[in-house]
Amino acid sequence: MKIEIFDTTLRDGEQGAGVEFSRDDKLRVIHALDSLGVSYIEAGMITDERSREFFASLGDVQRELKNAKIAVFTQTCRAGERADDSRLLSLAASSPVPTAVIYGKAWLYQVTDVLQSTADENLRMIRDSIAYLVASGKEVIFDAEHFFDGYSDNPAYAIEVVDAAFKAGASRVVLCDTNGGMLPDVVGLITSAVCEKYENIGIHCHNDMGMAVSCTISAVLSGASQIHGTISGVGERCGNANLNTLIPVLQLKLGFDCIGDKIASLTSIARQVNEAANLSFNESEPFVGGYAFTHKAGAHIDGVKKAPRSFEHISPETVGNTRNIVVSGLSGRAAIIEKMELYMRSRGEEDFSFTKDDPRVLNAVEMIKERETAGYDYEDAGASLALAIDDSLGIRRRFFKLLSLKVIAGENIEGTGDEFTASAMIKISVDGREELTAGEGNGPVNAIDEALRRALSRFYPQIKKMHLTDYRVRVLDSRATASAVRVSIESTDGHRVWRTIGVSSDVINASWQALCDSVEYLLTLSEA
Amino acid sequence: MKIEIFDTTLRDGEQGAGVEFSRDDKLRVIHALDSLGVSYIEAGMITDERSREFFASLGDVQRELKNAKIAVFTQTCRAGERADDSRLLSLAASSPVPTAVIYGKAWLYQVTDVLQSTADENLRMIRDSIAYLVASGKEVIFDAEHFFDGYSDNPAYAIEVVDAAFKAGASRVVLCDTNGGMLPDVVGLITSAVCEKYENIGIHCHNDMGMAVSCTISAVLSGASQIHGTISGVGERCGNANLNTLIPVLQLKLGFDCIGDKIASLTSIARQVNEAANLSFNESEPFVGGYAFTHKAGAHIDGVKKAPRSFEHISPETVGNTRNIVVSGLSGRAAIIEKMELYMRSRGEEDFSFTKDDPRVLNAVEMIKERETAGYDYEDAGASLALAIDDSLGIRRRFFKLLSLKVIAGENIEGTGDEFTASAMIKISVDGREELTAGEGNGPVNAIDEALRRALSRFYPQIKKMHLTDYRVRVLDSRATASAVRVSIESTDGHRVWRTIGVSSDVINASWQALCDSVEYLLTLSEA
Repeated sequence: MKIEIFDTTLRDGEQGAGVEFSRDDKLRVIHALDSLGVSYIEAGMITDERSREFFASLGDVQRELKNAKIAVFTQTCRAGERADDSRLLSLAASSPVPTAVIYGKAWLYQVTDVLQSTADENLRMIRDSIAYLVASGKEVIFDAEHFFDGYSDNPAYAIEVVDAAFKAGASRVVLCDTNGGMLPDVVGLITSAVCEKYENIGIHCHNDMGMAVSCTISAVLSGASQIHGTISGVGERCGNANLNTLIPVLQLKLGFDCIGDKIASLTSIARQVNEAANLSFNESEPFVGGYAFTHKAGAHIDGVKKAPRSFEHISPETVGNTRNIVVSGLSGRAAIIEKMELYMRSRGEEDFSFTKDDPRVLNAVEMIKERETAGYDYEDAGASLALAIDDSLGIRRRFFKLLSLKVIAGENIEGTGDEFTASAMIKISVDGREELTAGEGNGPVNAIDEALRRALSRFYPQIKKMHLTDYRVRVLDSRATASAVRVSIESTDGHRVWRTIGVSSDVINASWQALCDSVEYLLTLSEA
Repeated sequence: MKIEIFDTTLRDGEQGAGVEFSRDDKLRVIHALDSLGVSYIEAGMITDERSREFFASLGDVQRELKNAKIAVFTQTCRAGERADDSRLLSLAASSPVPTAVIYGKAWLYQVTDVLQSTADENLRMIRDSIAYLVASGKEVIFDAEHFFDGYSDNPAYAIEVVDAAFKAGASRVVLCDTNGGMLPDVVGLITSAVCEKYENIGIHCHNDMGMAVSCTISAVLSGASQIHGTISGVGERCGNANLNTLIPVLQLKLGFDCIGDKIASLTSIARQVNEAANLSFNESEPFVGGYAFTHKAGAHIDGVKKAPRSFEHISPETVGNTRNIVVSGLSGRAAIIEKMELYMRSRGEEDFSFTKDDPRVLNAVEMIKERETAGYDYEDAGASLALAIDDSLGIRRRFFKLLSLKVIAGENIEGTGDEFTASAMIKISVDGREELTAGEGNGPVNAIDEALRRALSRFYPQIKKMHLTDYRVRVLDSRATASAVRVSIESTDGHRVWRTIGVSSDVINASWQALCDSVEYLLTLSEA
């Protein structure tokens, strides 16, 4: 059976705190979602001149899409207002996209206490608004807001709302758990009752109970044929149902057809959309997260090597993800060797022999374990691990030599503490040629970063393309200011992203190590 | 009906990529969880000398707890090994905590293909291991690993495993969805079948399908009486069932008794545990997240003002959270006034009038909101909050004036990066008398700390008794090395413990603010 995927990342997703899309972000998301094969893309609310102009530009975009229909979102006319007098409805009607979604109340309490209107007038508003949009040539989807609260309170009225919407010409009626307070079993029972009477029912759930996915599944198993959700579950309050989770559960576990074989691009599309939205990706996300198939405990690593399904409920490749072995204090020698093999293979050295007795392997394992004991945590720092492996195998190339590094920080202005400055001087040599540079910054690390990249770019111009995208500090076993810190850095050259770490009792030293690893890793890559 | 809460944040939670607890972090988490009223706290695996020593210290900790039993986690003896020859079992037996959790396989495929053993030998390992621990005086909880996969594959064998565990003396048998691939309905049906035959069944779910909460609820509705989970759902791969969500759903929506009226501290404890783990809090988390009751869309803000239940499925205060309107900063005025009143009362100023129109109050609220927006999080920094309140009320005393501060850091020795040094010079004045001192340390902050305390102790000898006990750095909204950091410091004078914070784009400046607050707070105390 086919389940229609209705994406509302750009509308309900954007109602989430901290979520905002520029016009270009939105276009990028629309194209990514279309290539994923969703059926509908709700591109936003239409309220003012700016959103009107945006929607006006979507006529051309729609023609480029292969799978999805773009939808505009708005509300019914107001109590006492004629549909053809509604400014919002007329904006929606005139926007050149094929589908309009309008929402109206299905909970009588909301009609009387929030809208301060009547049961009949609310039905009139729904009927007239849908009919108006249908007459303008739109396919109309009706979001029955607060449907489940409404049905629990007054089932007859909630059904009247659904009935009115279909009779007025809606192609789909979507049952919304607007407050996200429903249990999956309740959603299932109520959806069943509705689906006994009507076809073309959709479901729209929120995650306030951590069960938006489960409620949506329940509704589908009870007959709903369209699911609303967002990429990574972004949305108002605790978010919407997460499509990255729903699609594989429905398609791989329950046999529904959602996006067919495009499911293999799910991981990559999910990342693209998060990137476009400038959201930091949740690596623990089911199916698509970097940790979803990452094994850390020794027993799990051992098990998954012997029999993948012993600790993996699906094969990661199905959704375009990959298995990952994390090297950490909890993992044994097998994990380190596995990681080394993966790394050497990625360098094209297929023949490299990693038997457990190979003295180079024993040496590397020893060295990595030693560093882990000192606080180096390689689990999230693949680039530093790669360099450490090269080191232990005696094949690490050094690209420069540090001759001197000095940082000066402090304030001289009496009083406020607002006037801190930091500067750094650095002297390096490359093949006997020396370079002395200085850098200034918002803090000592920023200053060193400036100075180091300035010094190196004379010898290695590719350094100019690289910049840091993340900087983190963690205090290890925190006793007082003299305790060790671990600094992790994420860097990019526009194409690739890599992470490095450093550990020291001195935050400047730890940062220095991570910075060095980062530039050295880039230089290693550009050499290969 | 009572549902036992079994917390495994410190064990299964720590198996999550990026999660790590120091010894002190663990102790802080144990005390926080105990005050929340959970029944069991699984404090970790026992594997080596370091974990043995940690568990040896928990005998004293256990005696301080009011609600929870501490549990040690280990595995059964190996195939062909006698239980009393197992090093791990003997480590668990000799640790001074009341409860031991051991895991064993309930999926025959795992027994034959991963352990490479037989059905009977696996049952023998389970029986002997449990009996051995019971004989050593432990309460034993048995985690039936891969129970649901096992039951789906071979129900008779899965039941034999449960039976063997109870007959050997286990007090609870926990059905584990180790791979997290089960649907809630399936978990419910299988749990029902087990609960028809046995009492004292627990449930342990993983979030690989985004439904760990839902599966756990399903199991409870089918008869399970103990739930396993972690704070904020941290854990291996996509995490464990989230206790912050499960507890309110079970208690507020379904009428089970989990932690009684301690549920009002849920939000604060969840934050404390995330803080101890140095995890950045997921503000979209159901119930406890900062966004859980945050309204952004205009219609929602309007609706929630007219009738809270129109967009809130529970009242936020029930779980110790607050409603938030996104346009107006982080915490509400009422919350700040409440904090101010608490503080003034703690200073013995009962009569201090805090009406909402008091201009001093409005001023304080404004100032604190501004600082919160800049990243100051006073939740865990009572001493800095107290000073900020004094400041805003115009009653803060300044004990010294900073005239100059300089830090010099760097290395001069060619090469290794091991020879970093840091020194600081500081000049202060107290009542017109100047003092210039220097300090040296393992890093710039350590050096400043030395210099500052040396300078102040001439005027305020009580400073000598004080020292720092914790130092943490958190990068706020991390883009690159120029982004802001929050430093939090914990200090003690041997009797009292207080925490202070500083925020700046420069880690040295942020540390300086937190250090100043710390000494000033001590001086305020010794004056009172």
